[in-house]
Amino acid sequence: MKTPFNKPYLSGRETFYIEDAVKRGKISGNGVYTQKCQKFFEDKYGFSKCLLTTSCTAALEMAAILVEIEPGDEVIMPSYTFVSTANAFILRGAKIVFADSRSDHPNIDENSLESLITARTKAIVVVHYAGVACHMEPIMALAKQHDLFVIEDAAQAIDSYYTFADGTKKALGSIGHLAAFSFHETKNIISGEGGMLAVNDEQFAKRAEIIWEKGTNRSSFFRGEVDKYGWIDIGSSFLPSEIVAAFLWAQLENLEDIQRKRRAIWEAYHQQLASWALANGIKLPQIPNYATNNGHMFYLICKSLEQRTAVINHLKAHGILAVFHYLSLHKSLFYNERHDGRSLVNSDHFTDVLVRLPLYYELAVEEVIRVLREFKKP
Amino acid sequence: MKTPFNKPYLSGRETFYIEDAVKRGKISGNGVYTQKCQKFFEDKYGFSKCLLTTSCTAALEMAAILVEIEPGDEVIMPSYTFVSTANAFILRGAKIVFADSRSDHPNIDENSLESLITARTKAIVVVHYAGVACHMEPIMALAKQHDLFVIEDAAQAIDSYYTFADGTKKALGSIGHLAAFSFHETKNIISGEGGMLAVNDEQFAKRAEIIWEKGTNRSSFFRGEVDKYGWIDIGSSFLPSEIVAAFLWAQLENLEDIQRKRRAIWEAYHQQLASWALANGIKLPQIPNYATNNGHMFYLICKSLEQRTAVINHLKAHGILAVFHYLSLHKSLFYNERHDGRSLVNSDHFTDVLVRLPLYYELAVEEVIRVLREFKKP
Ligand SMILES: Cc1ncc(COP(=O)(O)O)c(/C=N/[C@@H]2[C@H](O)[C@@H](O)[C@@H](OP(=O)(O)OP(=O)(O)OC[C@H]3O[C@@H](n4cc(C)c(=O)[nH]c4=O)C[C@@H]3O)O[C@@H]2C)c1O
Ligand SMILES: Cc1ncc(COP(=O)(O)O)c(/C=N/[C@@H]2[C@H](O)[C@@H](O)[C@@H](OP(=O)(O)OP(=O)(O)OC[C@H]3O[C@@H](n4cc(C)c(=O)[nH]c4=O)C[C@@H]3O)O[C@@H]2C)c1O
Repeated sequence: MKTPFNKPYLSGRETFYIEDAVKRGKISGNGVYTQKCQKFFEDKYGFSKCLLTTSCTAALEMAAILVEIEPGDEVIMPSYTFVSTANAFILRGAKIVFADSRSDHPNIDENSLESLITARTKAIVVVHYAGVACHMEPIMALAKQHDLFVIEDAAQAIDSYYTFADGTKKALGSIGHLAAFSFHETKNIISGEGGMLAVNDEQFAKRAEIIWEKGTNRSSFFRGEVDKYGWIDIGSSFLPSEIVAAFLWAQLENLEDIQRKRRAIWEAYHQQLASWALANGIKLPQIPNYATNNGHMFYLICKSLEQRTAVINHLKAHGILAVFHYLSLHKSLFYNERHDGRSLVNSDHFTDVLVRLPLYYELAVEEVIRVLREFKKP
Repeated sequence: MKTPFNKPYLSGRETFYIEDAVKRGKISGNGVYTQKCQKFFEDKYGFSKCLLTTSCTAALEMAAILVEIEPGDEVIMPSYTFVSTANAFILRGAKIVFADSRSDHPNIDENSLESLITARTKAIVVVHYAGVACHMEPIMALAKQHDLFVIEDAAQAIDSYYTFADGTKKALGSIGHLAAFSFHETKNIISGEGGMLAVNDEQFAKRAEIIWEKGTNRSSFFRGEVDKYGWIDIGSSFLPSEIVAAFLWAQLENLEDIQRKRRAIWEAYHQQLASWALANGIKLPQIPNYATNNGHMFYLICKSLEQRTAVINHLKAHGILAVFHYLSLHKSLFYNERHDGRSLVNSDHFTDVLVRLPLYYELAVEEVIRVLREFKKP
């Protein structure tokens, strides 16, 4: 038996909706399915405006344009994240100021942020690692105090929540000024490649639509508000094909079911590995009480790089693929020399010791657990 | 009867291949179908390396990154083009120097280029309007002389050729250093939204792949050349989903048939409207003898804006949708004040008088011709 790390989930209606999109004679962007998906997200999670994009990377690039990053502006973000979080801002000329992760979680350490703010700081980008909320309340307060934008890289964070001290619960991606989601095939809800920008601050709503449509007022034109459309701003073609949106729609119809299943797998891992982990000095993921678990990812925090390698190899020997994750961006070939030299020990630690276990709809999780329990090495 | 301006062509195998992509457990970018499509284009048209992208806009952005546009660099291109041609370079900080069209064709006037070159000029972008070649031989010679890059915006130009004075025939998109194609649903070969970068100059091949994969060497990693992938350059997620590539593959299998059909419609328009056009002072498209016709677009050059409006209204009254096309970019709200004031009379002329007739696989072209022949007004 082979257990891949990931296997795309299919509701079974994907090609049906794709065929329907084609029958409607419209498969370029911003058709019926794009609008259905956008409305679904707006209604369910309270985002003021959603725009589907070709990837989360693209949505992050839109965010960088919207907050008007200019050469030399500083953007604070975790080093332990995917390259796209940083690239999107670098493409607009930003200098990235990397922050460390918390010691107990790969998420950005909210207490480390204040000391990183300078007169050039324009934005803080938080990454809700594994779909688990960063501590948004102090981060939003700090941003307000220093007049900074907060962008949520919610690539992994669909259907997850943050609870404020007063008990208010808000969906991740609805708290910062802007947020970016991913529908890459490794995510909970997928379209192969795909993403979405959520606009929460109304000041960005109109311009977001223009930037999305190649810097034109083409959306206004198709709503009949102007009699021709023209070039009015910078922009790109951030719209995904209706084929992609139709696929995504079939997923959204099954969101509850997908989420129930993924959370159950996560719980099985968490319960059934608890004593084994303790015995091996391995830590399991923690969900802080201000956060929820969206069943995106189950990972282990090993004792050491050696132990992680041994775990990966042990699983591999049984046909099970587990993978390491991000590599500290401040140490990358690209940013190494641009970084200011601060050491980010937690980020480096997770780079070495975190390993992700298979987690997908059809996973035979008991088998992975069984194999893991046999592991009692370094 | 209603005749739309465009109707997406379907071979019938699109959803079959999409299902196959899903069965293979891989629907993110750069899978089997992406590679099949890329190889098809490389083999058939002699591009050294092809990379599918989410749009032609995205491919143009890759080109702008590859030629290392820096703030203040000048890029020469026609004003009569789609906004994406310009936006892609503006996002990297370029100053756009707009050139006029030829008087007999919307394509860039090759004779106007030399006088626009300055010490800051970095590239010339040509747009093969309606899939008809720009006069590439003098343009390539000029570029060589001044050490400039030539980028072909071949959005409309799949399956079309240019013949050099010595008789050598080369596919459009294989002549400049880089070229960008579109598979937007209004094009000959479609995937809803979609595009491709063709790399002809070997110096760009390796970096193109890195930029395409978010600035990482992920492609090398998946080929087994390195044991982990990392951040080594700027980049974005330019890869389309395998869903999109699978759709495109079904189109490519039918390329010959699509092209035969489109060219036949084009010929029917051209032959059967000849005397009518003459009688009304309307010009039909010309194909210079160095160029071929890929059946992408059939347009009329009216005498005046009034006549064009009357033609569009006449057709509309019979349920037939004909549309105007580009608006001179140098006069746009966005660029108006940045433009250096030169007047570009041919570009403005085509802005006012060009109208595109419906052209798609299933079109009842005789009906459109019949209706047009009844038009004998201003
Ligand atoms: C050289 C070149 N380079 C790069 C790319 C990028 O490709 P990607 O998309 O793959 O990134 C393109 C793509 N272009 C196309 C089409 O060529 C273009 O026509 C337009 O198509 P539309 O969906 O808008 O439809 P339409 O049917 O052409 O017009 C619909 C109505 O809109 C009115 N109109 C039209 C224009 C143009 C304009 O400025 N203002 C305006 O008021 C006329 C009609 O009534 O948009 C496409 C993306 C290109 O041509
Ligand atoms: C916060 C955040 N923000 C933005 C975005 C952008 O989203 P869009 O894609 O929608 O634009 C993302 C997207 N991320 C994902 C995945 O999270 C990420 O894991 C990776 O997935 P992969 O296909 O590479 O697969 P994998 O199975 O994670 O790893 C496969 C092997 O690769 C090795 N590896 C891994 C890494 C990471 C690395 O640096 N170096 C490295 O050698 C580990 C394995 O053996 O890429 C995705 C696009 C994100 O997480």
